[in-house]
Amino acid sequence: MKNFYQDGPRLQNTFQSDQILQNFLQRKLPQEIQKNVFDHLQHVGDLASGTWLKWAALAEAWPPRLTQFDPWGRRIDQIQVSDAWIQLEKAAATEGIVATAFERKFSEFSRVYQMALLYLYSPSSAFYSCPLAMTDGAARALEVYGDSDLKDRAFKRLISRDPKIFWTSGQWMTERTGGSDVSMTSTDATMVDAKNYKLHGTKWFTSATTSQMALTLARTNPQEKGNRGLSMFYVELRDANNQLQNIEVHRLKDKLGTKALPTAELSLLGAPARLVGNLGEGIKTIATVLNITRVYNSICALGHMRRGISLAFDYAQRREAFGAKLIDLPLHRKTLNDLQAEFEKCFAFTFFVVELLGKEEAGTASESQKKLLRALTPLVKLYTAKKAIQISSEVLEAFGGAGYIEDTGLPYLLRDAQVYAIWEGTTNVLALDFLRVCTKENAIGELTEWMMANGKGQNEDLKVLRDEKWQKPESARELAFLVSELLIRRL
Amino acid sequence: MKNFYQDGPRLQNTFQSDQILQNFLQRKLPQEIQKNVFDHLQHVGDLASGTWLKWAALAEAWPPRLTQFDPWGRRIDQIQVSDAWIQLEKAAATEGIVATAFERKFSEFSRVYQMALLYLYSPSSAFYSCPLAMTDGAARALEVYGDSDLKDRAFKRLISRDPKIFWTSGQWMTERTGGSDVSMTSTDATMVDAKNYKLHGTKWFTSATTSQMALTLARTNPQEKGNRGLSMFYVELRDANNQLQNIEVHRLKDKLGTKALPTAELSLLGAPARLVGNLGEGIKTIATVLNITRVYNSICALGHMRRGISLAFDYAQRREAFGAKLIDLPLHRKTLNDLQAEFEKCFAFTFFVVELLGKEEAGTASESQKKLLRALTPLVKLYTAKKAIQISSEVLEAFGGAGYIEDTGLPYLLRDAQVYAIWEGTTNVLALDFLRVCTKENAIGELTEWMMANGKGQNEDLKVLRDEKWQKPESARELAFLVSELLIRRL
Amino acid sequence: MKNFYQDGPRLQNTFQSDQILQNFLQRKLPQEIQKNVFDHLQHVGDLASGTWLKWAALAEAWPPRLTQFDPWGRRIDQIQVSDAWIQLEKAAATEGIVATAFERKFSEFSRVYQMALLYLYSPSSAFYSCPLAMTDGAARALEVYGDSDLKDRAFKRLISRDPKIFWTSGQWMTERTGGSDVSMTSTDATMVDAKNYKLHGTKWFTSATTSQMALTLARTNPQEKGNRGLSMFYVELRDANNQLQNIEVHRLKDKLGTKALPTAELSLLGAPARLVGNLGEGIKTIATVLNITRVYNSICALGHMRRGISLAFDYAQRREAFGAKLIDLPLHRKTLNDLQAEFEKCFAFTFFVVELLGKEEAGTASESQKKLLRALTPLVKLYTAKKAIQISSEVLEAFGGAGYIEDTGLPYLLRDAQVYAIWEGTTNVLALDFLRVCTKENAIGELTEWMMANGKGQNEDLKVLRDEKWQKPESARELAFLVSELLIRRL
Amino acid sequence: MKNFYQDGPRLQNTFQSDQILQNFLQRKLPQEIQKNVFDHLQHVGDLASGTWLKWAALAEAWPPRLTQFDPWGRRIDQIQVSDAWIQLEKAAATEGIVATAFERKFSEFSRVYQMALLYLYSPSSAFYSCPLAMTDGAARALEVYGDSDLKDRAFKRLISRDPKIFWTSGQWMTERTGGSDVSMTSTDATMVDAKNYKLHGTKWFTSATTSQMALTLARTNPQEKGNRGLSMFYVELRDANNQLQNIEVHRLKDKLGTKALPTAELSLLGAPARLVGNLGEGIKTIATVLNITRVYNSICALGHMRRGISLAFDYAQRREAFGAKLIDLPLHRKTLNDLQAEFEKCFAFTFFVVELLGKEEAGTASESQKKLLRALTPLVKLYTAKKAIQISSEVLEAFGGAGYIEDTGLPYLLRDAQVYAIWEGTTNVLALDFLRVCTKENAIGELTEWMMANGKGQNEDLKVLRDEKWQKPESARELAFLVSELLIRRL
Repeated sequence: MKNFYQDGPRLQNTFQSDQILQNFLQRKLPQEIQKNVFDHLQHVGDLASGTWLKWAALAEAWPPRLTQFDPWGRRIDQIQVSDAWIQLEKAAATEGIVATAFERKFSEFSRVYQMALLYLYSPSSAFYSCPLAMTDGAARALEVYGDSDLKDRAFKRLISRDPKIFWTSGQWMTERTGGSDVSMTSTDATMVDAKNYKLHGTKWFTSATTSQMALTLARTNPQEKGNRGLSMFYVELRDANNQLQNIEVHRLKDKLGTKALPTAELSLLGAPARLVGNLGEGIKTIATVLNITRVYNSICALGHMRRGISLAFDYAQRREAFGAKLIDLPLHRKTLNDLQAEFEKCFAFTFFVVELLGKEEAGTASESQKKLLRALTPLVKLYTAKKAIQISSEVLEAFGGAGYIEDTGLPYLLRDAQVYAIWEGTTNVLALDFLRVCTKENAIGELTEWMMANGKGQNEDLKVLRDEKWQKPESARELAFLVSELLIRRL
Repeated sequence: MKNFYQDGPRLQNTFQSDQILQNFLQRKLPQEIQKNVFDHLQHVGDLASGTWLKWAALAEAWPPRLTQFDPWGRRIDQIQVSDAWIQLEKAAATEGIVATAFERKFSEFSRVYQMALLYLYSPSSAFYSCPLAMTDGAARALEVYGDSDLKDRAFKRLISRDPKIFWTSGQWMTERTGGSDVSMTSTDATMVDAKNYKLHGTKWFTSATTSQMALTLARTNPQEKGNRGLSMFYVELRDANNQLQNIEVHRLKDKLGTKALPTAELSLLGAPARLVGNLGEGIKTIATVLNITRVYNSICALGHMRRGISLAFDYAQRREAFGAKLIDLPLHRKTLNDLQAEFEKCFAFTFFVVELLGKEEAGTASESQKKLLRALTPLVKLYTAKKAIQISSEVLEAFGGAGYIEDTGLPYLLRDAQVYAIWEGTTNVLALDFLRVCTKENAIGELTEWMMANGKGQNEDLKVLRDEKWQKPESARELAFLVSELLIRRL
Repeated sequence: MKNFYQDGPRLQNTFQSDQILQNFLQRKLPQEIQKNVFDHLQHVGDLASGTWLKWAALAEAWPPRLTQFDPWGRRIDQIQVSDAWIQLEKAAATEGIVATAFERKFSEFSRVYQMALLYLYSPSSAFYSCPLAMTDGAARALEVYGDSDLKDRAFKRLISRDPKIFWTSGQWMTERTGGSDVSMTSTDATMVDAKNYKLHGTKWFTSATTSQMALTLARTNPQEKGNRGLSMFYVELRDANNQLQNIEVHRLKDKLGTKALPTAELSLLGAPARLVGNLGEGIKTIATVLNITRVYNSICALGHMRRGISLAFDYAQRREAFGAKLIDLPLHRKTLNDLQAEFEKCFAFTFFVVELLGKEEAGTASESQKKLLRALTPLVKLYTAKKAIQISSEVLEAFGGAGYIEDTGLPYLLRDAQVYAIWEGTTNVLALDFLRVCTKENAIGELTEWMMANGKGQNEDLKVLRDEKWQKPESARELAFLVSELLIRRL
Repeated sequence: MKNFYQDGPRLQNTFQSDQILQNFLQRKLPQEIQKNVFDHLQHVGDLASGTWLKWAALAEAWPPRLTQFDPWGRRIDQIQVSDAWIQLEKAAATEGIVATAFERKFSEFSRVYQMALLYLYSPSSAFYSCPLAMTDGAARALEVYGDSDLKDRAFKRLISRDPKIFWTSGQWMTERTGGSDVSMTSTDATMVDAKNYKLHGTKWFTSATTSQMALTLARTNPQEKGNRGLSMFYVELRDANNQLQNIEVHRLKDKLGTKALPTAELSLLGAPARLVGNLGEGIKTIATVLNITRVYNSICALGHMRRGISLAFDYAQRREAFGAKLIDLPLHRKTLNDLQAEFEKCFAFTFFVVELLGKEEAGTASESQKKLLRALTPLVKLYTAKKAIQISSEVLEAFGGAGYIEDTGLPYLLRDAQVYAIWEGTTNVLALDFLRVCTKENAIGELTEWMMANGKGQNEDLKVLRDEKWQKPESARELAFLVSELLIRRL
């Protein structure tokens, strides 16, 4: 026993070993495209349990560094990232993690396919999925609102499969005055001409500050307060010499997790910007981005849960205690099975929303489905985020002390999971969003109808929704979880 | 708005601002000792929101370093800790965080008083509470099982208030073969004489490796497997020249949290050791330590929750969004109030167990109370640990993005909380412990009786306990939480 | 041999073991003050080989850190230094390392006494001697040029022995445009009133940026180029709340050596400043500071050489190779003796200049002595700096491979030595300074006369000085070393 | 002036801009091979001022890391190096930095060609030249003493141009007991069979511990003391699974310079080894390696000087002070020209020795030339090492304060230079080596003769060599420099 060394957990091809995903795709995808899609996912599952995994570990081990000044005193604000991080970007382009959604080769199924790719890519990407989320959202916003020259310049890069021309985009919403409450945005946009502005302000969080472009909000009329005065702008960060254009990076944020991701605090000091969408309609315009990033958040949370649970099951096959393999200890097995069940609920919920998104983008969604999508987008984000944290904490515990030691590569599961509940809207912000849609657009009616139709005669449980208390904001969180649970039972 | 900077959260005197603690003590402590105790706690609450807080931050910022070799190639294995960490040790001695329990000036109330001290000290101690837990447990074990010379040498140091003679103790149980399952311990003890042995083996986790002594398990007969062959030993780590005595430190563990605490992996290469308690009764003997450390774990988890919630409430008074202070946003207020309610449940549960412990140590506990104490010790540990994690995650979220940034001093709340559910027994291990006590000692009967007596006529809810499924190990975790909730309703 | 471990070098009381210093003081100091002075130096030699040495090592191990922003985004530019660095400051005050010179208790011998203190303090101070140099220079400048309110506020603090009121001063001369060539200073001073100005500019190097005050040069009329437009200003860095007053710190410099010393690059953004000395006479005024700091540089270089040589001799007594102790290997012994001889030459030269300085400050110097002091100040600085580098490199080599390993505490000897030849004027800048004094003030005549008078009939070697080539700037460095050598022979 | 930023120094193609090297090769190389060689050197000069330079900077920025244990407690002792360091190894293979010497395509000129390559490669290689030196020395030793199977396995890899099969070799001589004095080697070799042994011992310095093989000394009969009992062994560090074979790495050395180079302290715990050369003739056998590594040391020192001087000249063209470019300030120009003159002396000396080495290896050297080579090898090493340090220190000073700041990329010039005088024999050890050759083999006679023959009638200066003092060991260093200077005058 003195020479005993525990084997660590290992990953198999993450597509091949994922029965849940396979079953879902078999049920949903048209027969004729299954072969192509499955072959690609098989290849990606291989990368995700091999090459990408190594890159992700290296990217975490060599986090980004900011150099504000060159040796001779020039302000340069260069962010140096690891080679591994760059490789993960290239792989994302090559495998079409974003592109697949916009090429729409498989009509409404394109989103399902693309999100399946993301689901496999994300947990082995050291959070490169974050810049991709914003890239996808920005692509969608430019597709809908962008002028044709912007589409030529930026949109086609965001959706490229060629690493040499691929761009990623940031989305800068958070200021010191307000994270959740963007109405307090205090960045000013000074007009140069009808389309072009100069931005002045400070952005408290900008994820993926190494991106080539960003979408952001600013106020064209400083007198106008609140949401009304806000417009959306397109910013290119660097000029032809790769120098930041009137942008100063204060610091990289030292975060609890997502260590490979260069999140910065920066000031816009007259950064040139281009108006996208109508003046004063910034909130509406940027919502297009948010709707995408929230679905990304859900898929990434889902991939995250699955990663943790896979490792815990694998380890339970390798580790012995009390005279048996962990997997054969009844309580340990029960604990893992419960986690798996939670995960499966999240899987069903998330991919249901992805199907709706696919239909909407392909133009095949009914009005009712569009309303459902609007209502469920905040809901699925808040629900999966919370589950990802709980499951990650349980997964760490399932490894005992080893789950608390950084070099096992396990603790990041909890450190990273916590972010899902924070960015793209906290639980409460999203719960209130959901409440608003329910009230204003009667989405609750739409939802109830859908649930009744899919409840197969056992809709007693829906009665609870009639309570008046659900109209009060203090009940919004409780309502959100309640509706989620009711819905999931019917999926 | 451009010049807006958010104020960070602040702490008031943590005793004075803690109505829950004050109310409890007023109800429980005899009138005549309240003045003394309250004055001391007021003083300690001041330190905990001032000097100690600064030291704790410094101790986290300058984590321990291991130097394995001196410049000239000698193996030295020196662990260098920050000055702040040393100050926190001195403060613990001076304020009697351990001593108060053993001096027993206030008979059975001594533990309540001492645990109140710990509850205030712990969240401002950068986890110096961990060495104190093991010190207290070791003191208790030596008090019960130690020979008189050991008491003279070690016991009196462990319970000293004089920083110059104060010692702390480690408790080394975890090996590569088994964390939870100590029966797989493979450290050998070779006899020198009746009392003295040499130890050979590897300890996977040894918290507070800067301690002067440790208690550990080893096997005097390598042929004898399982728990039976294990005995408990007293080890002094260093000789008169402060050199490790046949101990090699492999590395300091890079943990998710508890960064200031020097946790090491080490090998015993013939380290001199002294038998404590009877040969072959190591498990029983060391259980004395564990019973103490589990209560410490609960109190520390409790202090941890309270710290997070205090910061979140304070911040909610300072931060504005959506046109109001956060505290005035109904859903935010509801969220914080729910956390507070959870905390109060834990408070009641934990101090109920502390009262029992105080009675037992003071010799005033009935047989029934002793049985309750045995049953509830694992239960309160597992319950409070889980709650501490959930609450910490919510607290971080209540700060939005700021809760995810290390320099706000918030993320450690989650990183540290996770450890409560791991060390001193994971949730499942403790749930099975509890089940064992319930079954073997009919503690469940004792508990039900107590609950019926304290249920004031509303004991319908106890029926659920009659279900046979609770005897199955896979239900042990569910049972543990169920019993906890039923009990708490009656406190 | 397998268990052989080399002993590292050790230091004895650095005064008691320094025969050169003792002999010098016995020769120079009046009988009646020797007892006092020797007792104090004995005490200081004890600290320098004990407590201070430990602090210096800690200060190097925990180098200063700059925090530019608080967690909430406020610009704060706080420089955090180790506790050890603060202790070294306190010790400097308490032992009167600066104060001794200004109290002038022993008239012209005060400087000799004070420089003997510095010589012992400096090599165990982790370069705290650097802020002291500027403090002493600033004190002298304020003593000569300061208005009475400035003397009351600042001068008395600079020369205080009370750590609580003691201040240190920076001296900010270097800009991106010019280190050596201060005529290119581009900091502007905008007048507020006759005495008060606002400064705008960037300082490339500011040593000891944790000082409370600094002296610096700025240009009151931006049209006036060159040295003429420069005036000297007094700046207090922080306000009553310890916030920088319109100063932004760009970064701490990552230097080859002097790691404990916080050297920063900073911008003055309207920092309030007070004129010292006459308008437009900044160069002359700040020369007062430079004359002091150059002598400090020489003394520190001297202490540095002595430290290295002491360690090398001690080690040569402990280390064996080729069948003997190193000290008994003829070539090794010869090598160390040669280093010692070089050191003794530097000692004689430096303390000769210190004597002159003491006389000048005490008002007992003849015109001729004043001229000598002016000429020899740049000379002794350049000469000792170069010797310190050469000797330090030899000392490292005398330890073989151990001299190249950082944890032996030896390599810093070379890293730090290199700075002596750079700051306060490079070798070439000082050589040209010397040439200028020789030419303009006929200091060369004065020097030759002194050398002839002290040559005791063997002045053949002075003939070489008659060569006309010495008037050419390209010969200035050669001349400087030649004159130094000729002079030293006569000391 | 406020917006002034100094340009940093830049490198041109380091072959094309090196008139000294070009002139030398034009004079020495046969006409017919010049085209080929010059084309290759032009290519290499391009890499050395471009791609390699970037890799070298990256390799310094990401220094090697040692991981002693895997997450689960297994001892692994993995040394992780940067990707840039690996690229520099590949480039060395591809460009034939070692291979060129052993292919001997150009007979006796092969060494000149190869050393010209090394001279260009080395200063842009982050000291990858160090493993190459040992690789070349080991290749030579195996070529001369290796059995044919060893040649097949190792020799052909050491001299390969294919990065996939290329190996590097370590040379482990230094123990705690003795760096210079290898007679104190205490590693034991226990016989397995006539050729195979197991080694036990500790090596204090092993440069390039990531090499696949090493040559080392060990004692087959522990009773036999001194040099006599030593034999040379071939060790393969890792098995087929890339695990160290009975070797434990204690630590990576934290050195003053050569930061990218993984230098380790390690223990041999029964490492399998193969005898090379005759039993008991280890000193003689390993001398073959040393003769090569000392010439490498000289070439690297030479390349190092040239790098520093190139940067200083370039900067002097860019930087203005006192109204002129630095290069136009007479004293600055004189200072740089003096450094260049020193460098040219070193160049002539070193390549003279390289020519002799080339002849010896090609079998075209006379007995007299062989004797000269033996005498001059230690001499050129000690001479160039000392010059490299002095020049590097001057180069740093020529940049003023910028030369003291790490991010300018200048300070490493001094940090790295210091090692030249330490490894492969300190100045004193080499001076005594030289003295021994002079005395024992009458090399001094040979040298004097050569010098008289090449002195062209001006041999007055040789008289000084007749002094009897040169036979004393304490004069050996002085003699070494004297003979070097006398010789250089004649080159």
